[in-house]
Amino acid sequence: VHFPDVERAEWLNKILVQAWPYFTTIVEKTFKEVLEPKIRAKHVHLKTCTFTKINFGDKCPRINGIKVYTKEIDRRQVTLDLQICYVGDCELHMDISKFKLGVKGVQLYGTLRVILEPLLNDAPFIGAVTLFFMQRPHLEINWTGMSNLLDVPGINVMSDSIIQDFIASRLVLPNRVTVPLKKNMNIALLRFPVPYGVVRVHLLEAENLVQKDSFLGAIRGKSDPYALLRVGTVQHRSKTVSRDLNPLWNETFEFVVHEVPGQHLEVDLYDEDPDKDDFMGSLFISLADVMNDRTVDEWFPLSKTTSGHLHLKLEWLSLVNDQEKLHEDKKGLSTAILIVYLDNAFNLPKNQFEYSNGEYGAKKLKTNKYLKVK
Amino acid sequence: VHFPDVERAEWLNKILVQAWPYFTTIVEKTFKEVLEPKIRAKHVHLKTCTFTKINFGDKCPRINGIKVYTKEIDRRQVTLDLQICYVGDCELHMDISKFKLGVKGVQLYGTLRVILEPLLNDAPFIGAVTLFFMQRPHLEINWTGMSNLLDVPGINVMSDSIIQDFIASRLVLPNRVTVPLKKNMNIALLRFPVPYGVVRVHLLEAENLVQKDSFLGAIRGKSDPYALLRVGTVQHRSKTVSRDLNPLWNETFEFVVHEVPGQHLEVDLYDEDPDKDDFMGSLFISLADVMNDRTVDEWFPLSKTTSGHLHLKLEWLSLVNDQEKLHEDKKGLSTAILIVYLDNAFNLPKNQFEYSNGEYGAKKLKTNKYLKVK
Repeated sequence: VHFPDVERAEWLNKILVQAWPYFTTIVEKTFKEVLEPKIRAKHVHLKTCTFTKINFGDKCPRINGIKVYTKEIDRRQVTLDLQICYVGDCELHMDISKFKLGVKGVQLYGTLRVILEPLLNDAPFIGAVTLFFMQRPHLEINWTGMSNLLDVPGINVMSDSIIQDFIASRLVLPNRVTVPLKKNMNIALLRFPVPYGVVRVHLLEAENLVQKDSFLGAIRGKSDPYALLRVGTVQHRSKTVSRDLNPLWNETFEFVVHEVPGQHLEVDLYDEDPDKDDFMGSLFISLADVMNDRTVDEWFPLSKTTSGHLHLKLEWLSLVNDQEKLHEDKKGLSTAILIVYLDNAFNLPKNQFEYSNGEYGAKKLKTNKYLKVK
Repeated sequence: VHFPDVERAEWLNKILVQAWPYFTTIVEKTFKEVLEPKIRAKHVHLKTCTFTKINFGDKCPRINGIKVYTKEIDRRQVTLDLQICYVGDCELHMDISKFKLGVKGVQLYGTLRVILEPLLNDAPFIGAVTLFFMQRPHLEINWTGMSNLLDVPGINVMSDSIIQDFIASRLVLPNRVTVPLKKNMNIALLRFPVPYGVVRVHLLEAENLVQKDSFLGAIRGKSDPYALLRVGTVQHRSKTVSRDLNPLWNETFEFVVHEVPGQHLEVDLYDEDPDKDDFMGSLFISLADVMNDRTVDEWFPLSKTTSGHLHLKLEWLSLVNDQEKLHEDKKGLSTAILIVYLDNAFNLPKNQFEYSNGEYGAKKLKTNKYLKVK
């Protein structure tokens, strides 16, 4: 029998529907008792801010698909991906000074990774739950009263879509939400784990790219191709090669990889144009495969287009903790990664004029230096 | 989109495989630290009994199907059925006085009901987990050293299949295993809930039953039909009607129903014979339907046979707590159900000769009297 990787789970949705009223009661209480005091403490203008209505509604998120990873993961953890679809009728009202801000309805689609870690031999059997989105989820918040707020000086540089983008990006790796289930659990290591490794991408060349620049459709010209390379929220751009359908780049980019399996390298090729750049094809490579193969040197056929291949060399760099192996790379490539875990800060200056009086301080609790070798 | 009632959940099996080593460690510890002292305290002959090996093996139970109930259940609970299949390589060795008893491999198939109840507004969000089988599961235990033990006087009236049957029947409703998740949870009400109701079955008549008694296949005779009626572990037998393929019984039976939905009335018809009784057909009626319809008076076609209908009248009797409604039934049918919850006993006599000295006592903590009305 073959079972699909991603399964439906209507029974789980039935449980969610049953548990939703209890869950919303908990969240509503948390908003009032935990979030409200935190917002008030943030800024002097927020110190009277009050939730006047918190109602998470009747509509419950749906899980459209579920996948559990069994390979390439720690034996002490359970890793699963939930395809979440939430079209919620939640309603929040908040008084901020003289403004009323609210939310009436939220939409969220995306693949939520859930990590149960560490598994334990005694109650509660799971140390903590860590949640994050691998790719940015689709998020739509229906604000009420936002237009009034956006007229306020100092806030009016923002827009509701910027705020929305900010929230969406906060949900994506390397950001993680970690909820401890066991008391006295040190969740710092779970929230900020050492990355799985670094992938070094040599963007070498392409061939037979599609023709995009044309003059009134009659004279066939050449495209000016460049590449956008993306892993999670980090994106790099190559230089543009002028008038060449077989461009040679020979550029190198590096990405820190926080989660395997599930993270991908995305490469999009574009034709640079004075007005709007034209799409020339793309590539989607599983970093789990690169991690297993260590080095990949291949011509990849481009997808979402009619022709073209892209020549990439991919190197997987594991992280080791051994200073002896640290040596300078002659080609000027990076050889180490410095991980700084900033635990907290205190007595920070209120503004730049306070910098001189020396009263502020930053408490750096832990600094890890990891070496990178092939 | 239509979703099946019973769904597969391979992803859950993957999680089980991942969690199995942690689970077995917990169970192995519980056997040694909790079960062993309990067995030792049971009887003077068991006071040196020791688990010399406890290994729950690598093979993990599989869940072949899962179903969640959303109708006819309390809003404060989640009810699900798991189709369990366990072909285990567990190994247990135990020294009992001079005997060595062991288990090497267990097989268990059946539908396990899981009730998460009550749902809570704060951690741990679920008060307790209750587990039981609705019907008797298929259980096969591969004993080692059992034959030596069964030679011991006092034990030799038993057989390994009797012991196996005893264990299997302990897993079936109305027996329940309740594991509290919240501290100070009163689990007595969850383990011994008030039944859902009583179903009164009027076994009226049947027609066109199949012919079973024949003399050398030549002379066609008549069958001698009787019925076995079963709900869960309780079974009643009707009287036998001689030489009649359209028998009239007019008998009444009552069953206490502990769990709806999921419990069924099973009726099997047999032809009574001097040697082996012949099967004449059967019937399977969902008690959830009877509960909804209150009264059902119908001719049911028999299944697993070629002909025959059975005329039943089914009445659903809800339980109410109101003494005023208690009145004697003129036809001699029962009108009330007395539920005695015996919490514990102490200072019980060691043998019958101690009965006279008055030192024993039974502490009856709670007696509920429920009335039964239509």
